[in-house]
Amino acid sequence: MAEKAFYPKLEDVLKLTERGKLELAARVHINCMEDLRTIYTPGVAEVCRIVEKDPDAAYKYTWIGDTVIIVTNGTAVLGLGDIGPLAGLPVMEGKAVILKEFGNVGCVPILMKEKDPDTIVDVVRRIAIGYGGVMLEDIAAPECFEIERRLDEALPIPVFHDDQHGTAVVVLAALIKALESVRKGPSDLDVVMSGAGAAGCAIARMLLDYGVNDVVLVDSKGAVYAGRECNTAAKEELGAFTNKERKAGSLKEVLKGADMFVGVSRPGLLTEEDIRSMEEEAIVFAMANPVPEIEPDVALEAGAAVATDGKTLNNALAFPGIMRGALDARAGSITMEMKKAAATTIAGKARKGELVPDMMDPALHKAVAEAVAEASSGGGS
Amino acid sequence: MAEKAFYPKLEDVLKLTERGKLELAARVHINCMEDLRTIYTPGVAEVCRIVEKDPDAAYKYTWIGDTVIIVTNGTAVLGLGDIGPLAGLPVMEGKAVILKEFGNVGCVPILMKEKDPDTIVDVVRRIAIGYGGVMLEDIAAPECFEIERRLDEALPIPVFHDDQHGTAVVVLAALIKALESVRKGPSDLDVVMSGAGAAGCAIARMLLDYGVNDVVLVDSKGAVYAGRECNTAAKEELGAFTNKERKAGSLKEVLKGADMFVGVSRPGLLTEEDIRSMEEEAIVFAMANPVPEIEPDVALEAGAAVATDGKTLNNALAFPGIMRGALDARAGSITMEMKKAAATTIAGKARKGELVPDMMDPALHKAVAEAVAEASSGGGS
Repeated sequence: MAEKAFYPKLEDVLKLTERGKLELAARVHINCMEDLRTIYTPGVAEVCRIVEKDPDAAYKYTWIGDTVIIVTNGTAVLGLGDIGPLAGLPVMEGKAVILKEFGNVGCVPILMKEKDPDTIVDVVRRIAIGYGGVMLEDIAAPECFEIERRLDEALPIPVFHDDQHGTAVVVLAALIKALESVRKGPSDLDVVMSGAGAAGCAIARMLLDYGVNDVVLVDSKGAVYAGRECNTAAKEELGAFTNKERKAGSLKEVLKGADMFVGVSRPGLLTEEDIRSMEEEAIVFAMANPVPEIEPDVALEAGAAVATDGKTLNNALAFPGIMRGALDARAGSITMEMKKAAATTIAGKARKGELVPDMMDPALHKAVAEAVAEASSGGGS
Repeated sequence: MAEKAFYPKLEDVLKLTERGKLELAARVHINCMEDLRTIYTPGVAEVCRIVEKDPDAAYKYTWIGDTVIIVTNGTAVLGLGDIGPLAGLPVMEGKAVILKEFGNVGCVPILMKEKDPDTIVDVVRRIAIGYGGVMLEDIAAPECFEIERRLDEALPIPVFHDDQHGTAVVVLAALIKALESVRKGPSDLDVVMSGAGAAGCAIARMLLDYGVNDVVLVDSKGAVYAGRECNTAAKEELGAFTNKERKAGSLKEVLKGADMFVGVSRPGLLTEEDIRSMEEEAIVFAMANPVPEIEPDVALEAGAAVATDGKTLNNALAFPGIMRGALDARAGSITMEMKKAAATTIAGKARKGELVPDMMDPALHKAVAEAVAEASSGGGS
């Protein structure tokens, strides 16, 4: 099930990246003074008056309904860590290109050299009026949780931290498909997850909502459980709804007898022996970037029923359609129902024997957008 | 010399404006997984590392060198006044289209429902790292002066309030040309200006720098002079370098015997009699938007040597090339020298007998950009 990896040459990457991957473009053109007077003064004045009287008209006569911002402080960029917002800009541009190509959503990078959630929330609140939604990106946990929660409460537009929820949606979609090839249901699954950061928490919530028996998250100090001495507030909160037996121990220890492994952590953590220690018909989603916790081929050889990696379980399957759908519905938030609708739709589009559908299929993103919009109860503006 | 005005039909304006005049566009496209892996992970990681090591590389591998933000709080939108930032968005989009079409500069609207200069400065400082420059737009005086000054001091990138400096550059360009058809030099000119807001102050500074004898600004309370009882701090500062004879009185009173009238105020303030009261070979730039202080035809009939309006003296002659040149030079500020270079270049491109060149000529904007870049002493990082 593992795809053969393609690694682009640096030379090709740099050439393609020259002067950026993203640009502002004019949707109308100026070929004569009449054009200028139509799009600018005096023509524009009446459009301003219309929006002044009815702010909702901004969705009709400005770019708001098709444009979001993508906010980062560069503290958790891909596998690179805290490299700062400017060095993270190539990722933001890449993400914006994916949003545009797959979801026809415009996306403006907003970079902030700032770690304090208060300041980030304050700045985003003050500039959000000009856009239809907010993406958060590559912001480290636990700050990302607070930033997302507070922005979502404060703003009438959708706020989406893809590193959390996009990942969770794709994991759930793939799990729905994986369950077609094993003799287990969701409630039979004891899940062990390596990585208890942004993605880990969101995946845990989504899998538990889907009905798995339990999720045990493992961080650098071992299994997370309620009351663990070294717990931060975020980890304590995590312990409250995961690991109901309060298992302690290392990743290898808690993995024994588990039905499913989800990895959002570091390359090469697992061996064939670890896979063999799992329950029969094990499901292995090893998504460390860019090298998985265990190569899917190796996991399959060691007896896993299903194994894949982050190249296959790509967030780009989910977030363009989710944001497009949220914008189309003028949703005030992106709810669990909307995320579940996205996961179910993605799973439904995958062919028999495949965990996920073809990301290059425009019909996929359109279907996700429609499902998400339908699952929205509205609430924007 | 006055152009025949074209007034677009509302129906045409609204049709053209549907879903906005501006969009984010992808400069690279995703047609297969290899494309995705080139523009996003894993390909993007090395680009991030390059920018992390050398922040300057962001100008090579991101959109920064071609992208500015346009910041507004909507307190002084066109002739509409304080309509708020959202209602001002159609103007921002229009301005962004002009920048793109004439200067190939991308421009992201940033809207802030905020009047306090401290907050506006703080927010813009915090997000400016992601862009090559800052345009301020439709922000009322006197706040706009403080915001521009503080941002220009704080940021290593150019900050440009077009309502002030774009207008001033075009006025100077047209004056250079107007002086070709009268028997006066700059030092012979006593200028009276109606309007002492953002544009008025900048024009006064620029004309005085060019060597006119004096400028008397007139606001709603009459001529501005140092020590006037009702002066705000900004007006007192203005009085310190204008109206050296400390003339008092109404617009009509101080206009008597003046050589040049510049109007950046309200429609229809002047009559033929007022023009006749001016010195011989009077120059009349009546730029109130969208209807001038006096129609150029009327002023010419009343004996003015040169008369024109805001349709002709359009900022779009100047700001696209100015911002393009500042970006190309990586200028840290837009200096008086750069603005003068722009004005001289614009004047030089106008045909004999015309005050300004054809705005639709791409060679104009290219020439302005080159002159501005050359006049820059550098300074941006």
